[in-house]
Amino acid sequence: MELYIDRDAFLSGLGRVQGIVERRNTPNPILSHVLLEASEGRLRLTATDTELAFIGDFPANVITPGEIAVDAQSLFQIAKVLPDQTAHLKLGAQMRLEVTSGSAWYKVVGLPAADFPSLPDFDGRSSVQLPAERLRWLIEQTGFVVCQDDNRWGINGGHLEVVEDEAGVSQLRMVATDGHRLSYAQASYEGEFGMPERMLVPRKALAEIKKLCSRDDEEIDISFGESAALVTTSSARFYFRLIDGEFPDYRQVIPTSWQRRAFVHKDQLVSALKRVAVLAQDRGRPVRFAFADGSVTISSSHTDLGEAREEVPIELEGDALDIGFNIRYYQEVLQAARSEKVIIELGDALSPALMREPDDDDALLIVMPMRLD
Amino acid sequence: MELYIDRDAFLSGLGRVQGIVERRNTPNPILSHVLLEASEGRLRLTATDTELAFIGDFPANVITPGEIAVDAQSLFQIAKVLPDQTAHLKLGAQMRLEVTSGSAWYKVVGLPAADFPSLPDFDGRSSVQLPAERLRWLIEQTGFVVCQDDNRWGINGGHLEVVEDEAGVSQLRMVATDGHRLSYAQASYEGEFGMPERMLVPRKALAEIKKLCSRDDEEIDISFGESAALVTTSSARFYFRLIDGEFPDYRQVIPTSWQRRAFVHKDQLVSALKRVAVLAQDRGRPVRFAFADGSVTISSSHTDLGEAREEVPIELEGDALDIGFNIRYYQEVLQAARSEKVIIELGDALSPALMREPDDDDALLIVMPMRLD
Repeated sequence: MELYIDRDAFLSGLGRVQGIVERRNTPNPILSHVLLEASEGRLRLTATDTELAFIGDFPANVITPGEIAVDAQSLFQIAKVLPDQTAHLKLGAQMRLEVTSGSAWYKVVGLPAADFPSLPDFDGRSSVQLPAERLRWLIEQTGFVVCQDDNRWGINGGHLEVVEDEAGVSQLRMVATDGHRLSYAQASYEGEFGMPERMLVPRKALAEIKKLCSRDDEEIDISFGESAALVTTSSARFYFRLIDGEFPDYRQVIPTSWQRRAFVHKDQLVSALKRVAVLAQDRGRPVRFAFADGSVTISSSHTDLGEAREEVPIELEGDALDIGFNIRYYQEVLQAARSEKVIIELGDALSPALMREPDDDDALLIVMPMRLD
Repeated sequence: MELYIDRDAFLSGLGRVQGIVERRNTPNPILSHVLLEASEGRLRLTATDTELAFIGDFPANVITPGEIAVDAQSLFQIAKVLPDQTAHLKLGAQMRLEVTSGSAWYKVVGLPAADFPSLPDFDGRSSVQLPAERLRWLIEQTGFVVCQDDNRWGINGGHLEVVEDEAGVSQLRMVATDGHRLSYAQASYEGEFGMPERMLVPRKALAEIKKLCSRDDEEIDISFGESAALVTTSSARFYFRLIDGEFPDYRQVIPTSWQRRAFVHKDQLVSALKRVAVLAQDRGRPVRFAFADGSVTISSSHTDLGEAREEVPIELEGDALDIGFNIRYYQEVLQAARSEKVIIELGDALSPALMREPDDDDALLIVMPMRLD
């Protein structure tokens, strides 16, 4: 194997696999390695942790085809500091990969490509296509809400389904919850949706798919098999196992009407929450939101440190209400909104609070309140 | 107590004390507090951990004089997020400090100023004065070499002494070593040097003094007592206890002549070391520097990962030499140099290696070599 490759392309490919490979000192060392396969005009990089697999092709001037697996983390560190725009890779004796660039020379210990785990056969049976920008947005709106606790069966992944919007157009909807918050976002798509029922997209896969959506205008294909899925872009493929889990009937949680509704400038609310959070107790105690005509007063208290209070102008429809929230949950949900103004829809002090953007029915965020003392 | 203060001045003062106060949950809670004392035209902030004490005055519009101690960390966090340019501080009932700024309101739990530890009497007997820029430079050249291990009696602090330069002018010299490296730097001064013998400046104090030297043109006064010192600037005072310790006779270590000498571009050497460091073993094994006519070849090897090699052009006077160094130590020492080129003076493979800047006898850096396999 011998090739020349642009350092930046090499670096971006190696960067992409860092989230997938196992750390060094894993019991199965090959899983901390990236597989390099050079053939006519391209270097293919493959990485897997056996649950996820990334396969990306990068243009290269290949002199001699060949293959080798090397430690992904050290190759990435090497690529980061190469002095020249071009890197020269050459497989030497005893499975040593020589990397040269300008005055820099490395000889990296490798493992035979044959040791690299073979990727599972994939039985894709249906697929959907949507623009990278939309898919990334679906993940940004919902990914942060996916339950972090893998013992919480049914909510430790993203749920996908197809819904019809008001105009009767099919939409691909991603839904996530952690029991305290719920979020969905939807986008139109082409193709046929065939994600198996009672399956979820794992958290780690969501993060990797988002990275694949860096080019806004690119069309992304998601193909579904019996227990796995495949995301395909123009230059990469990404497999991941789906996880078992029956997502709860989330529609039950979504209020169908509101008793009061507030319009607020997102940035003002974000800054106010940041200031109140300074003296907020970590988790146990709610922060008070006192919605009133013309303003919401947000206040926190910390047993040892003291109290904080902020007032933010709002337009309120309906009666005043005091309601409590975990401030960190509320901050994260608010950060997901992209519009200048947000609408907060409330029932009573113990009903789910809904946040939406004006003129946008494609996304919805819900935060469960906490009982005030 | 009631006053108005510029938020940025308040913030910089609170930032200054963060390195001195104890963390929250210290057995003695008052030591995590900052003392606020308002009087005519100024707010004084005092913080101490009983070894170090900072006292800084900040201009303020004081309505009512008074004093209170509050948790330094939360007051700092509050100051960081205040929305308005001005902060209003008012001491309320039950030792609560109200802080308001724009829409933000805080009520911070305080402790009586009387609980704050009184600062030690200081018996300053002599003092030196030098420009802030020079004092900062002395610390930058030497502080990173001070031994991190407080059990290493005699080298766990900075040593100060007065030497005469070649022109017979007295210079204040700061010296530090960690057993692997040695560094000194010196600057001319005014006044009378009277640091007690067998005393060292503690590491933590060096870091704080450096922060006091932010204004280049300011004259800094260092006054010496029997077991403490006081640094005075136009707006702050900083006390610290000196630590016991007889600094070793460091002159024994400094080579008086060289057998070979290399001139090298600092930036080229810095980049090369960064690249070789990627595959360098953490501590145990040296990196090889092969000095030869026209270039130094630097190479490392890592048992599991492989080898790295770099070549940097040099002008060499004297014979070729292979010598080993701990690469991290060498990198840190090299970073301290400010000139475009550095001079490396070498004896044999086991003699101390010296680094200096051309045309500058005011600073010297030494790295001990490691035996090559």
